Amino acid sequence: MTSSYTVSIDCQDQKGIVHRVTGVLFEAGLNVEEQGEFVDHLTNQFFMRTEVSGRIDHSRMAQALKEAAPPDATIRITPKGRKRVVVMVSKEPHCLGDLLIRHAYNDLRAEIAAVISNHLSLQELADRFGVPWHYVSHEGRSREEHEQELSPLLERYQPDYIVLAKYMRVLSGALVARYRERIINIHHSFLPAFAGSRPYHQAYARGVKIIGATAHFVTDSLDQGPIIAQDVIAIDHSKSPGQLIHAGRDVEKSVLAKALRLVFEDRVFVHQNRTIVFD
Amino acid sequence: MTSSYTVSIDCQDQKGIVHRVTGVLFEAGLNVEEQGEFVDHLTNQFFMRTEVSGRIDHSRMAQALKEAAPPDATIRITPKGRKRVVVMVSKEPHCLGDLLIRHAYNDLRAEIAAVISNHLSLQELADRFGVPWHYVSHEGRSREEHEQELSPLLERYQPDYIVLAKYMRVLSGALVARYRERIINIHHSFLPAFAGSRPYHQAYARGVKIIGATAHFVTDSLDQGPIIAQDVIAIDHSKSPGQLIHAGRDVEKSVLAKALRLVFEDRVFVHQNRTIVFD
Amino acid sequence: MTSSYTVSIDCQDQKGIVHRVTGVLFEAGLNVEEQGEFVDHLTNQFFMRTEVSGRIDHSRMAQALKEAAPPDATIRITPKGRKRVVVMVSKEPHCLGDLLIRHAYNDLRAEIAAVISNHLSLQELADRFGVPWHYVSHEGRSREEHEQELSPLLERYQPDYIVLAKYMRVLSGALVARYRERIINIHHSFLPAFAGSRPYHQAYARGVKIIGATAHFVTDSLDQGPIIAQDVIAIDHSKSPGQLIHAGRDVEKSVLAKALRLVFEDRVFVHQNRTIVFD
Amino acid sequence: MTSSYTVSIDCQDQKGIVHRVTGVLFEAGLNVEEQGEFVDHLTNQFFMRTEVSGRIDHSRMAQALKEAAPPDATIRITPKGRKRVVVMVSKEPHCLGDLLIRHAYNDLRAEIAAVISNHLSLQELADRFGVPWHYVSHEGRSREEHEQELSPLLERYQPDYIVLAKYMRVLSGALVARYRERIINIHHSFLPAFAGSRPYHQAYARGVKIIGATAHFVTDSLDQGPIIAQDVIAIDHSKSPGQLIHAGRDVEKSVLAKALRLVFEDRVFVHQNRTIVFD
Repeated sequence: MTSSYTVSIDCQDQKGIVHRVTGVLFEAGLNVEEQGEFVDHLTNQFFMRTEVSGRIDHSRMAQALKEAAPPDATIRITPKGRKRVVVMVSKEPHCLGDLLIRHAYNDLRAEIAAVISNHLSLQELADRFGVPWHYVSHEGRSREEHEQELSPLLERYQPDYIVLAKYMRVLSGALVARYRERIINIHHSFLPAFAGSRPYHQAYARGVKIIGATAHFVTDSLDQGPIIAQDVIAIDHSKSPGQLIHAGRDVEKSVLAKALRLVFEDRVFVHQNRTIVFD
Repeated sequence: MTSSYTVSIDCQDQKGIVHRVTGVLFEAGLNVEEQGEFVDHLTNQFFMRTEVSGRIDHSRMAQALKEAAPPDATIRITPKGRKRVVVMVSKEPHCLGDLLIRHAYNDLRAEIAAVISNHLSLQELADRFGVPWHYVSHEGRSREEHEQELSPLLERYQPDYIVLAKYMRVLSGALVARYRERIINIHHSFLPAFAGSRPYHQAYARGVKIIGATAHFVTDSLDQGPIIAQDVIAIDHSKSPGQLIHAGRDVEKSVLAKALRLVFEDRVFVHQNRTIVFD
Repeated sequence: MTSSYTVSIDCQDQKGIVHRVTGVLFEAGLNVEEQGEFVDHLTNQFFMRTEVSGRIDHSRMAQALKEAAPPDATIRITPKGRKRVVVMVSKEPHCLGDLLIRHAYNDLRAEIAAVISNHLSLQELADRFGVPWHYVSHEGRSREEHEQELSPLLERYQPDYIVLAKYMRVLSGALVARYRERIINIHHSFLPAFAGSRPYHQAYARGVKIIGATAHFVTDSLDQGPIIAQDVIAIDHSKSPGQLIHAGRDVEKSVLAKALRLVFEDRVFVHQNRTIVFD
Repeated sequence: MTSSYTVSIDCQDQKGIVHRVTGVLFEAGLNVEEQGEFVDHLTNQFFMRTEVSGRIDHSRMAQALKEAAPPDATIRITPKGRKRVVVMVSKEPHCLGDLLIRHAYNDLRAEIAAVISNHLSLQELADRFGVPWHYVSHEGRSREEHEQELSPLLERYQPDYIVLAKYMRVLSGALVARYRERIINIHHSFLPAFAGSRPYHQAYARGVKIIGATAHFVTDSLDQGPIIAQDVIAIDHSKSPGQLIHAGRDVEKSVLAKALRLVFEDRVFVHQNRTIVFD
């Protein structure tokens, strides 16, 4: 049975890598559907992403690629297919709603295994689409206590990725470390401008003429993780903070959706707090 | 002889202002070519900009508007026409070159009275267009010593506005105060992201997916003055800091040109470190 | 009881209109929340839109405005509030889904009275949100026969506006005339480029580097009605027609939502197949 | 002496091409600085662009690549370096001015060998930068007569590329054929919208909310050649055709500059009236 895979390799650059790696794929009789390479000349790091189709013997392929690539190489062979995700939300419905519509019409490249919230207000929305819902209140609890309930719940769903779709709580370093480069957040500003809370109010006070949104991997530095996608819209003086919040929602949801497409199609490498994206 | 004027009023909002002010213009028999109003509901401040044409008795009009508007009103009656500017530059030619081309083809709404630089490298460019050039070196001088030569030179040209077209030195608070809301700077980032020096290197290190430029009035807080215009371009991981600098130049010059058009057409009000722009 | 209204006036321009109209509003003791004027100098047409709040005697106000404005003026006094709309769809869920989420969270400025479709596939989506659904098949019917069922159904809901949210059938001239300037369509290209069918395939074949979407009022010239809003996204050679369709969906739904906000807030005038938008 | 080259290959796709071509480069001991591949799955055409540095024996490399690639392959080995161009203009200075500034500051990746115009008005601008200028009037001449003077002049300069920087005359099919895929035009609209003359007036009349510019290779179908780059800006109803023309200039010059960078860096393939751009 033929299948499709994404082969991702990154390592220190050296002469002949592409030749050797493509040789492995050629000898395995695979079709190359799409291929991209990039060398970061500042750090001499090489990145290669190849979509192949054909019959593949996973362990033989892994071994052959390991021999072809330098010893420091990170090699991933990922079958194409829907990822398994848990979505976390607080009170705002626009990103969750957008994800649920995409999910319902097979446009998310992922299975939403569950929605988890620290509020009750969006339960009705998840219910409309028949997606499992969990309420994990943070009221009167420390972050540790909250995560003592949250972590096993996440664990239970074995998600490939966790999507923070306007989840307004900070996760602990331990939880972030557990899902390294697997938690994606949508921040409601054009980072690094207006990190932290109430970015639209900050944007109003500063009088900017453009606002935006940023999807990034979560690290233990708040709003400092590797940026996956950003977009902006022009505004003018006439918009109040409330109108900025409203206008920003459309950007937030489209940037989050774009970032998820890139990540779920295995198009994103992380290198030194930056992303390399083959799109 | 009929002429054109821009009438600008700002004051605390109250009922009937537009009615009373337009009554003054109507009774003077003026044609209203373009009019805009805005109320900032957070501070209850009212702004009105009207382009009129017709015969105008300046002092009578000023008096009539003063009587029609509330006592706290700031009223300006500005004849339409080319402003008088001094352009200050350091070493980069792209913004100055763009301004000189526009100037030569009557597309700047301003007369460039002179170009002043702390370097010699752009003298040839100013010379090509026959624009007066002054070299005021900062080498081995304190800021005060430097401005002891610079200030009288500026004074001599009696500029309406000073344009910092990639001038890489910080002006003293005294000089900034002398030309309050009359010095326009182009900053090579999407402020408030990447204020300060080497913004493109900062942008590269942070891994942003969009870069931009900001034209703003200069205040004594570095890169913190009221923003007049901003624009951005999408980038990706493949661009080195040098390529970002290169790509950013086009945005810088178009944003600066846009901001100058707005200011030179008297379309910009400043209010609490924000601009109100009627475009 | 105080309420909010939008007063819209358009007529041939003449001196003193703003003064006279604002005089009426002032004497009625109304607060002006937002006001805009525009003169189209090519046709000498004047447009004015004012949001007022206060107690209003509708017929007296209409009479007073009629006396203050020129005889040719079109005057509308519209209470602020949710419009009543019918949404028509075919098979694609992304625009309808977006509208339903906004509707469910009070972000549409409109009541969706019903969804009507010539296909069955989106019934489940309307049902999820408890919105009335009607299936009016066009199979084996002429346009006239189809509209013999469709028209009374529309009539029954007494919609202020009809939203074609990816409705892939052409309406008859009679139906369009019945709802003049009240039917809004989202076209999946940057009009006037790629009017007609399969615009993304046209865009691919032409090799454009940017694609877009256009929301417009429907007239009896296909895809030629007054444009309300447009937006675009950059693409490159690597995108197949199918990927363009996918990428275009996000633009379609955000452009449609923007146009609906503008129309439902009574911000749009139509003049000679163009729109004047006060935003 | 080491040098840099761009190796461009396009042919029908088949398994193993990348492996064989990179094998040739590897065995020659070259460094791969940047590489991109693309397969157009609709036509099964393969494209590959590689920047290499090192000592190169041009004819041996050409032979080795020919043996490695399929028989139908088009192979180009181009030394990196400044192209030689002739710029043609009519009366508008903004694109020519921008090119001359870039040229003067080594930012064009090309040598402007000469400027040719059918009008006299821009001679002064070329003179300011000491670039050779030729006036070839079309007054009272047929296209053939005009080109009897123009063609030998172009020939004399042996240009790699001809840049039509707002040249408002149509070239004959013979001249276009002589410089196939080597004449680049900037069209002042977002093609295919508003092909032909007076696009900004067309855009005004149609009431579009976005205008743009398109840089494309010239073919013998007017404004129908392969598109290299496009960009747009948002506008609104308040802009007259004259203001659209003004606003459009900045887009025209930046789109032209972007297209020239791509072409002069050998980043552009043409395939079935579309461009494949490795950027």
